[in-house]
Amino acid sequence: MVKFNKSSQEIENMTRIGIVGVTGLVGETLFSLLWNHPEAVITYLASDHAAGKKLGEALPRFRDIDLPLHPTDLDLIKKNCDVIFICKPHGASMDLVKEIIPLGIKVIDSGADFRLKNAELFSHWYGKPHTAPHLLTNSVYGLPELHREEMRNANLVAVPGCYPTGVILAVAPLAKAGLIEGEVIANCYSGISGAGRNYNPSVGNLFIDCYDDLRPYNVLKHRHTPEMEQELSFLAGREISVLFVPHLAPIERGILSTVYVKLKDKLSEDSLYELYNEFYKEAPFVRISSSLPSTKLVRNTNYCDISLRLDGDWAVCISAIDNLMKGAAGQAVECFNIMNDYSWEEGLKWEKLKWGCIT
Amino acid sequence: MVKFNKSSQEIENMTRIGIVGVTGLVGETLFSLLWNHPEAVITYLASDHAAGKKLGEALPRFRDIDLPLHPTDLDLIKKNCDVIFICKPHGASMDLVKEIIPLGIKVIDSGADFRLKNAELFSHWYGKPHTAPHLLTNSVYGLPELHREEMRNANLVAVPGCYPTGVILAVAPLAKAGLIEGEVIANCYSGISGAGRNYNPSVGNLFIDCYDDLRPYNVLKHRHTPEMEQELSFLAGREISVLFVPHLAPIERGILSTVYVKLKDKLSEDSLYELYNEFYKEAPFVRISSSLPSTKLVRNTNYCDISLRLDGDWAVCISAIDNLMKGAAGQAVECFNIMNDYSWEEGLKWEKLKWGCIT
Amino acid sequence: MVKFNKSSQEIENMTRIGIVGVTGLVGETLFSLLWNHPEAVITYLASDHAAGKKLGEALPRFRDIDLPLHPTDLDLIKKNCDVIFICKPHGASMDLVKEIIPLGIKVIDSGADFRLKNAELFSHWYGKPHTAPHLLTNSVYGLPELHREEMRNANLVAVPGCYPTGVILAVAPLAKAGLIEGEVIANCYSGISGAGRNYNPSVGNLFIDCYDDLRPYNVLKHRHTPEMEQELSFLAGREISVLFVPHLAPIERGILSTVYVKLKDKLSEDSLYELYNEFYKEAPFVRISSSLPSTKLVRNTNYCDISLRLDGDWAVCISAIDNLMKGAAGQAVECFNIMNDYSWEEGLKWEKLKWGCIT
Amino acid sequence: MVKFNKSSQEIENMTRIGIVGVTGLVGETLFSLLWNHPEAVITYLASDHAAGKKLGEALPRFRDIDLPLHPTDLDLIKKNCDVIFICKPHGASMDLVKEIIPLGIKVIDSGADFRLKNAELFSHWYGKPHTAPHLLTNSVYGLPELHREEMRNANLVAVPGCYPTGVILAVAPLAKAGLIEGEVIANCYSGISGAGRNYNPSVGNLFIDCYDDLRPYNVLKHRHTPEMEQELSFLAGREISVLFVPHLAPIERGILSTVYVKLKDKLSEDSLYELYNEFYKEAPFVRISSSLPSTKLVRNTNYCDISLRLDGDWAVCISAIDNLMKGAAGQAVECFNIMNDYSWEEGLKWEKLKWGCIT
Repeated sequence: MVKFNKSSQEIENMTRIGIVGVTGLVGETLFSLLWNHPEAVITYLASDHAAGKKLGEALPRFRDIDLPLHPTDLDLIKKNCDVIFICKPHGASMDLVKEIIPLGIKVIDSGADFRLKNAELFSHWYGKPHTAPHLLTNSVYGLPELHREEMRNANLVAVPGCYPTGVILAVAPLAKAGLIEGEVIANCYSGISGAGRNYNPSVGNLFIDCYDDLRPYNVLKHRHTPEMEQELSFLAGREISVLFVPHLAPIERGILSTVYVKLKDKLSEDSLYELYNEFYKEAPFVRISSSLPSTKLVRNTNYCDISLRLDGDWAVCISAIDNLMKGAAGQAVECFNIMNDYSWEEGLKWEKLKWGCIT
Repeated sequence: MVKFNKSSQEIENMTRIGIVGVTGLVGETLFSLLWNHPEAVITYLASDHAAGKKLGEALPRFRDIDLPLHPTDLDLIKKNCDVIFICKPHGASMDLVKEIIPLGIKVIDSGADFRLKNAELFSHWYGKPHTAPHLLTNSVYGLPELHREEMRNANLVAVPGCYPTGVILAVAPLAKAGLIEGEVIANCYSGISGAGRNYNPSVGNLFIDCYDDLRPYNVLKHRHTPEMEQELSFLAGREISVLFVPHLAPIERGILSTVYVKLKDKLSEDSLYELYNEFYKEAPFVRISSSLPSTKLVRNTNYCDISLRLDGDWAVCISAIDNLMKGAAGQAVECFNIMNDYSWEEGLKWEKLKWGCIT
Repeated sequence: MVKFNKSSQEIENMTRIGIVGVTGLVGETLFSLLWNHPEAVITYLASDHAAGKKLGEALPRFRDIDLPLHPTDLDLIKKNCDVIFICKPHGASMDLVKEIIPLGIKVIDSGADFRLKNAELFSHWYGKPHTAPHLLTNSVYGLPELHREEMRNANLVAVPGCYPTGVILAVAPLAKAGLIEGEVIANCYSGISGAGRNYNPSVGNLFIDCYDDLRPYNVLKHRHTPEMEQELSFLAGREISVLFVPHLAPIERGILSTVYVKLKDKLSEDSLYELYNEFYKEAPFVRISSSLPSTKLVRNTNYCDISLRLDGDWAVCISAIDNLMKGAAGQAVECFNIMNDYSWEEGLKWEKLKWGCIT
Repeated sequence: MVKFNKSSQEIENMTRIGIVGVTGLVGETLFSLLWNHPEAVITYLASDHAAGKKLGEALPRFRDIDLPLHPTDLDLIKKNCDVIFICKPHGASMDLVKEIIPLGIKVIDSGADFRLKNAELFSHWYGKPHTAPHLLTNSVYGLPELHREEMRNANLVAVPGCYPTGVILAVAPLAKAGLIEGEVIANCYSGISGAGRNYNPSVGNLFIDCYDDLRPYNVLKHRHTPEMEQELSFLAGREISVLFVPHLAPIERGILSTVYVKLKDKLSEDSLYELYNEFYKEAPFVRISSSLPSTKLVRNTNYCDISLRLDGDWAVCISAIDNLMKGAAGQAVECFNIMNDYSWEEGLKWEKLKWGCIT
């Protein structure tokens, strides 16, 4: 049974949501967003390693919020939720999802399990067989700038990885216009929160390891590569290869992607910007500007800032996102909004509900 | 003339506010808070060095907001504002305030000009004569936990300094209970944003100077000392001296205050916590807990977290605030709420407007 | 057998040293110092978790140094070393030390096991009985500014903790002069390397936990407290209590100690500086100056910078050290120099061996 | 007249050196290196804005060194120096150098004035005419891995820029082998010290601007581009274009360069490493390894670590340097050593003068 702190009239039109994995970095960010979302009421919070505690005990920044943390429990989900957000490590959600979907509950999964349409590609990159391949056909890759329409009727959305979000948005208009020649070179730097809040921490994520350091990792073999290739190939209508080199920088959150593309046709910088402005004309969270992006300018927001430069045949497309917002939890809320027919921006953007302007 | 983006019915009950000095760090934070405040409509933004530009040009994180920036102009204020927030360097607001108050417009000043009740003390610490001493009697020191009642009818509120906010809240219950013996020792560390966004930057605030460094400054002679002494003496009903040693640490925002007080009477830790819980029982932004505070736990919030420890006669009272929120802009909004009879927490706190709890 | 890369004449007058625990932060710093020390030749490196690897494999910054890492082995120590440096967690060296000392090999221990003269005090603070209490009488507390003479003939030196080094040096002259009244209040901030390179890392030391955060810990109950009290009481000839509050700041290395002492007699600031200059007149690593110290000014050096301020009865004594140098490895080398009758500064200070000065 | 602190016999074989611009970041680092250099004696220190002060006053980390700072003065240079190191802003050294060279004094210039062989290219990129074009023919580009032989007899060496050092070393063997097809894509991140210690600081270098931020700047139009193109073209024997995108990351020192090159011929990773090992077989400061580089692993050292990866036709060449060492002051000392026929590594490398290895 769920006890509410408001009268049933006030909440009866709201969507009852649950978060599985709420004590991770993405789960925590999702909680903040949904706690303030005007159309959502949080009815279920699960954390495998902190079940039995209060939220404020597990995450002391919420020390004045005493909602209980539960184990992952299909019965609780069935009784209490209309939509479930899952924030678990890669490979850990597919078994759960295949139980939830038949209950008629919608799933928004932040992990990688349902991002790749090809089950063999999944098992190649993630080192285990896919246990719910029948769900891949109907699952939607949750990048609203590309798949908004399919999302409206979806019961399973796979939120994109953080790096793919930044890289795909940076070059999607070029892919769509058939302008990409050869490989896409994606050079990305991420803040340390990209690695999550690991409850089995490893030496590599210690402060003294990361501080004052810049380093590449998983060069040309990061698991986010096939996502980028799937989506850019889909847009281009042909196979596109991505050379993806991720790096770590000692900031908390943010991904800066510098993407190099050789163009098939000569373009002026103006027509390049036109192409992007047109492609993103309905996208409330993409800001195109010749003023260069930076992670700080999008920190704690759901924006993806994009800027473009040309040198001969080459275009340099630079994007910045907050990896926990547009790169994870914020984008999950976008998907939630679209799946439930709320405003795309609901709960995510400064309201602009009123202002006055001296003229 | 002001053009609004909403119908006049929607905004007619709102309070029209202006921000002077909106491109500084406090002004920028204030803008974010008031932009989303349900009872406020922003009608006037002034920035002496960026007048003529759009907000999004001067502060690129707001690149999609094209409100105009004006010079400081009494006529514009007179026609368009019910309340003015002033975010100017110390000593720079008193001449402006003495023009605004007679117009019947309320002022919330983030600077130091109206914090000290004693004009001579002001000129001793700030090195210039006070030009509006007649306003000092009715101005209110804007710490709502102490002066909420006086604020309700005030037309001029001086928002406390960041350090005094953390230190006074940490020991106010002891001062009020007459338990302080001898001097109060206030050892504080602040993030670098405490120095503001200086448009005439000095070598000391460069990244390469601050990074990887801890350093004391203005030892025993920081200008925030007399504020602390004024308010603690007022609470105690006797003169209280504060030994105040501020330090800088390489974080962006946050103040951690470790305050040492010798107690007149022996107390148990339990009764100490009782005293604090009672003192702050109506204060929505003070969180008392035996779990130790940290600046990260209050970052981007308006909370002041306080924890207490005892060793013999000595109490160690530790508080953490975000210097730009509870230490400046957030507290200014608290004052605004109370002066206008809105809820104390309006626009500042996660809403908790609804939740469900599985029982 | 040890193979040397130099002729036996060149090394026959050098001291053969071994480092147990070389892959920790203190061990690694010690290696750098001793590798360049003109009187030392490194003959044995032990690392329990990396034995069998090369140094450059375990610590990639030394990727071009292929010295082998061994397990801790009494036989190897016996055959190859004149002096052993031990860098192990607290409580882990006493069993080893009691085997080494009878072999006639000198020990310099960076851990806490032989710092406290009182075995019961040790077991109270460290939660285990002392297994070699007979060695406590002759062991020397390795702070050269206080115990240089006893060190000359010692076979066992316990290098002080990092916090005690900074705090004791900050107030030793006052303690010695009998000027301290009541408790000493020691407010310290440390960089994260103070926690060592933990090969079983915990959540608290992750980058995302420490970054952008200031926090107190172990308030009034840190294990370094009894060291401070032992040494200050020894200097003062009476019991001195220390209220010690340690904090963490997001820098790599450095400790800033702000120490508050109520003085028995009124002193001028000049006579205070005189007292300190006299006390430290032979100490090459203590720099007294009215210019305030900062951790950056002593980073990567063995200096302890000290500055003093007075306010009525209270003295504020501020010191800065690099916790891995003067607070650990550098101080261990000082002890090594003095025990072996080398110059106090050998291998630790810019040489000043020659300069020219235009007059 | 110069007064020395050693007997004349001890210093008569040393080289008398002067540093112009010693209070900048490069000058300060040079001072540290040369102060300890066994073959150099410092006889002259100049700082335009701190002349008349002692070194320890201008740079408080050297508070115990009271060498005097002078203005830039040709007479003092003439009387006292065999070699002059110049650390001035770009464009500020050419007028000085053309006066010094005729005096028979050797010059090592850290600025850009003598790096480009083409005076028109200089004036195009630096916005002013070159005032000493006659010196360009005999000046040597001070990258010892490429120009060691020419350096031996040079009287003027231009130390490379920090970015070019990292980028050129990363791909020089490919250029020399004629393997580069099309453009070189150089994606670099630098720590903030790359901007120098600006005594006229700008808002962009403040702590609060840089902290927690990643941002590109001068995209495709940074002044270091023509240096890279000049040297790579020289090696390849044909024009090579570089797409250079520099970025800033919030670390103090270090440059990580990720360089993408399309190869003319298919190569195995093994033969790629062979090519590099052969090319750098005599270079003491280049460490080739399949283990990925990072700025922290070379911090405070003169190493350039390089690692290589292949994907189809593309090679990814990653290098890390300390921008103040191998990227500036350390490389200047290399040039000094070679010009004066000292060991290439003198004063720059851990000594390895003796060690023992248990066998």
